[in-house]
Amino acid sequence: MSIGGFIHDEIPSEEVDRIEAAYGPLAEAVRELVDATIRTTVPPEEADLALAEIEAVVKRLRAQQLPGPAGVRFNSEGRAWNWGNAVVGLRNAIAPPLDIVHVESGLAHASVTLGAAYEGPPGLVHGGVTALLLDHLMGETAAASFTRITFTGTLTMVYRRGTPLGPLRLDARIDREEGRKVWVVASIGDEEGPTVEAEGVFIIPRWAT
Amino acid sequence: MSIGGFIHDEIPSEEVDRIEAAYGPLAEAVRELVDATIRTTVPPEEADLALAEIEAVVKRLRAQQLPGPAGVRFNSEGRAWNWGNAVVGLRNAIAPPLDIVHVESGLAHASVTLGAAYEGPPGLVHGGVTALLLDHLMGETAAASFTRITFTGTLTMVYRRGTPLGPLRLDARIDREEGRKVWVVASIGDEEGPTVEAEGVFIIPRWAT
Repeated sequence: MSIGGFIHDEIPSEEVDRIEAAYGPLAEAVRELVDATIRTTVPPEEADLALAEIEAVVKRLRAQQLPGPAGVRFNSEGRAWNWGNAVVGLRNAIAPPLDIVHVESGLAHASVTLGAAYEGPPGLVHGGVTALLLDHLMGETAAASFTRITFTGTLTMVYRRGTPLGPLRLDARIDREEGRKVWVVASIGDEEGPTVEAEGVFIIPRWAT
Repeated sequence: MSIGGFIHDEIPSEEVDRIEAAYGPLAEAVRELVDATIRTTVPPEEADLALAEIEAVVKRLRAQQLPGPAGVRFNSEGRAWNWGNAVVGLRNAIAPPLDIVHVESGLAHASVTLGAAYEGPPGLVHGGVTALLLDHLMGETAAASFTRITFTGTLTMVYRRGTPLGPLRLDARIDREEGRKVWVVASIGDEEGPTVEAEGVFIIPRWAT
């Protein structure tokens, strides 16, 4: 059963915990592998060996798998999980993952440390990666502690200076609301202050009001 | 030696080719692993086994590695490589990677197929991922066939509708220029047309003019 694309998946919460306890660490190991694949300087022959081993692991994992993307799922106990999300997905090695703290409805922040896999200009975070993380944080903030559904309408980023790789902080808050429109302001930066500032207009769909 | 963060790395082009021929396929296998880690439904015990094997591979690759991110490198033969880039990096499993065609100076397009690892809303590309890809394509377009250096000043995205996972097309062109400012317009979409439209202002740094 699917409601607005969200999938009712009747896995008991206890089993969800067990899966997360196994696949969370696996995704973490894959994140390390992504980093090592970029930074290693061992001879190409070692890459060939690694390739064969990785392909064997992939084959075993693919022996039984979902036909498509993971989607967002929930069970009757009120538990929800979005393991595949590109920013916060526990099982997605592309996601840093971002650990978001919702201080109150419409106010959130996150801390993250970005390594070699998120590079754009030399030594700096890819400008598009800052947009990726900000978009997600702002969307969750607009959703006011998950009490409503919102979609991104427009998003504007102002790049103040380069964002260094390493530990970063993100902040977002609802600035104002008018009818079905929610304005969110946000920033990402290092200990010296914001490097990128963003404003977004998020829309509450008519069918959800 | 480093010029503006770009690293002079005197590896002969032939050796660069040999490294790319080994590490390109490894990164491709890691992309498959990222996807399989999200979509597999094999029992958690299999994840534990996979974890141990991945950790062993990581350890071997890390036996010898760069102290930090890959950066952008070039040799005296005029060859340049940015293997770690988050969008186009050949050795970065986070990068789809985007294969950009520069039709002429200031006009570019790209085709890409996005799978489970790029999901945001159920079945759709994460809105931030569309921003990530557009930012990169627009930056390369502003750089006018790599004849100059530009930095992102501001970036505005207008989300028309959800972007489905699967095959996508991106387009970008320079709209106008004024002094050190370059305006680029771009879009990403499927066969039915654009899903996200973007405008960016890119800045040519004073020291580069």
